Amino acid sequence: MTHAVILAGGWGERLWPMSTRSRPKQLLRLAGGESLVRSTLARIAPLVSVGGTLVLTGSSVRDAVAAELPGVPAHRIVAEPAGRNTAPAIALAAHLLVREDPAAVMVVLPADHVIADDRAFRDAVTLAVGAALSERGLLTLGVRPTRPETEYGYIETGPESAVPGVFAVERFTEKPDAASAETFLARGRHLWNSGIFVWRADRFLEDVKSALPAVDAALSGFPSAPGDDRFESDVRTYYDSVPSVSVDYGIMEQAKGVYVVPATFGWDDVGAWSALERIWGGPGSGGAVRGDAVLIDSARCIVYAEDGVAAVVGLSDVVVVHTAGATLVCPKGRARDVRRVVEELKRRGAIGS
Amino acid sequence: MTHAVILAGGWGERLWPMSTRSRPKQLLRLAGGESLVRSTLARIAPLVSVGGTLVLTGSSVRDAVAAELPGVPAHRIVAEPAGRNTAPAIALAAHLLVREDPAAVMVVLPADHVIADDRAFRDAVTLAVGAALSERGLLTLGVRPTRPETEYGYIETGPESAVPGVFAVERFTEKPDAASAETFLARGRHLWNSGIFVWRADRFLEDVKSALPAVDAALSGFPSAPGDDRFESDVRTYYDSVPSVSVDYGIMEQAKGVYVVPATFGWDDVGAWSALERIWGGPGSGGAVRGDAVLIDSARCIVYAEDGVAAVVGLSDVVVVHTAGATLVCPKGRARDVRRVVEELKRRGAIGS
Repeated sequence: MTHAVILAGGWGERLWPMSTRSRPKQLLRLAGGESLVRSTLARIAPLVSVGGTLVLTGSSVRDAVAAELPGVPAHRIVAEPAGRNTAPAIALAAHLLVREDPAAVMVVLPADHVIADDRAFRDAVTLAVGAALSERGLLTLGVRPTRPETEYGYIETGPESAVPGVFAVERFTEKPDAASAETFLARGRHLWNSGIFVWRADRFLEDVKSALPAVDAALSGFPSAPGDDRFESDVRTYYDSVPSVSVDYGIMEQAKGVYVVPATFGWDDVGAWSALERIWGGPGSGGAVRGDAVLIDSARCIVYAEDGVAAVVGLSDVVVVHTAGATLVCPKGRARDVRRVVEELKRRGAIGS
Repeated sequence: MTHAVILAGGWGERLWPMSTRSRPKQLLRLAGGESLVRSTLARIAPLVSVGGTLVLTGSSVRDAVAAELPGVPAHRIVAEPAGRNTAPAIALAAHLLVREDPAAVMVVLPADHVIADDRAFRDAVTLAVGAALSERGLLTLGVRPTRPETEYGYIETGPESAVPGVFAVERFTEKPDAASAETFLARGRHLWNSGIFVWRADRFLEDVKSALPAVDAALSGFPSAPGDDRFESDVRTYYDSVPSVSVDYGIMEQAKGVYVVPATFGWDDVGAWSALERIWGGPGSGGAVRGDAVLIDSARCIVYAEDGVAAVVGLSDVVVVHTAGATLVCPKGRARDVRRVVEELKRRGAIGS
């Protein structure tokens, strides 16, 4: 049986102030009529039992996430008491799923990505599920790079596996410098790591056992299942004892039998304001405007105005955001540094950490 | 008797969105604890009878202006039914004052200026009142230029008059080009026209009669006094029939016996956002911040945040304004073009004209 595991933690700090702690990125309707988290489930729904989905999210937004996922039983929407990055969250999901279904295959889905072609996405997942079963592989979906992005992880592809369309992974490179990213783009052998993973839960837990013994130990002290009385307290104990580590760094980079399915669907993780130009503006538009904006002698700006007017005079290639509670201005090329604003606001106590 | 005539029309469009139609510039506390209009009256009060003051303002803000001027009888705060620039407003005030006091001297004061030294201001006015009486002159206060401003009117000074410290006016130049402004600044014979005028009401009405016959004709059909039943309807009829014309263009530029008192007090008309750097930032500060701002790798910015946060990343020499209802961003050098934003918002019906 194939199960969806939706990772809906974090709140998308680099999209502040459109996304905030109480209105995180995954609850925004960035790409159209539905929130990102709702689209994430709808996209995978034809391949899985929606009722068997597990969702890991933050405690402050758990109820809002639940409201977006009416088909998922409330007790399967797990509030993480603290952020511990992806490896502990995925390991907990694997632990819970394998006890429900020893042959469970899990599809790990970040809840805050925009995917343009749902059918192509499901074709790629289906291919990955096949390889997860036939090869007992750890599968990741890889995205053909379209720019020398330095904020992503890159996958160098090796030879095609026994399963056509599935390739061995030679090497992971996390956030390369600009020169390396240019080389990767030019060589054509590298893919972006989408963060969408497919594997048998039991296979993944074997890797956790060898690579992340502290996580493995914490899981062995986790007897309850979602809906049990002590489940919440087990979750708390678990998150108190596991280290914070990404699945890429903690598992994938050293594991054997790691494969990639090159994706053909349009993908964007909407990692920063600059992404909205791609999503809202369309190709070659040179800018994107949402809401009530006035632009005078300004070109190629990304402008978002909510509950009011955003006016830009004589500035080009900038991001300008208005919400009732905040204004953000930065050059498009500095969009990633919005996290420094959020850090400063946390330091002042204006945003909880 | 000396009378204050306060011109409190307009709303300071170039300070949008800090100033708005319902919260005009003259009601803002730009320079400290008091609103600009309240400071305007307090500054002149020792030289005039406050109860004899006349105020001309817009109908949408009349009550708010009245609340700031508790010593001025309500019926002496005249709501202009339409903006007709300064000449018709001052002519109406002169007409009303001369009937109350045939020897009335009027001190015309824009309500939206910041003046640093009240005592030096009153000394200059006192000198001007003397020349208005002894020379029957039209007096203006001139401000020593500190930059080649192209948005102001310039006064070329001639020889000193019979009254020491009072100079003949050779020529007015309205909004010179940049090269002329540089020349004026270098030559040292030019002063900025502050828009603060002093003259006998009867002398001014003689000039209205010869230079603006349509205004003179409209005044002859204005029989009532402030507080009379038909006063409001007379005001409406008057504003319906007068042309829109500035006192500089309509009267001063062709009148004889025009004099200037060079002012020694610090003066700013807070004409645009760039002025706030001078008023808030102090000399040489290279920027000014009011409210809750986060600046990352940004220098010499003018930032105003009201009811929220204004965050600027990687931009220098820009104006960034946040209010709950609007965001404004522009380079400091484009601050005057904020009026183009206001024009566009009027065109969309978002701001009344």
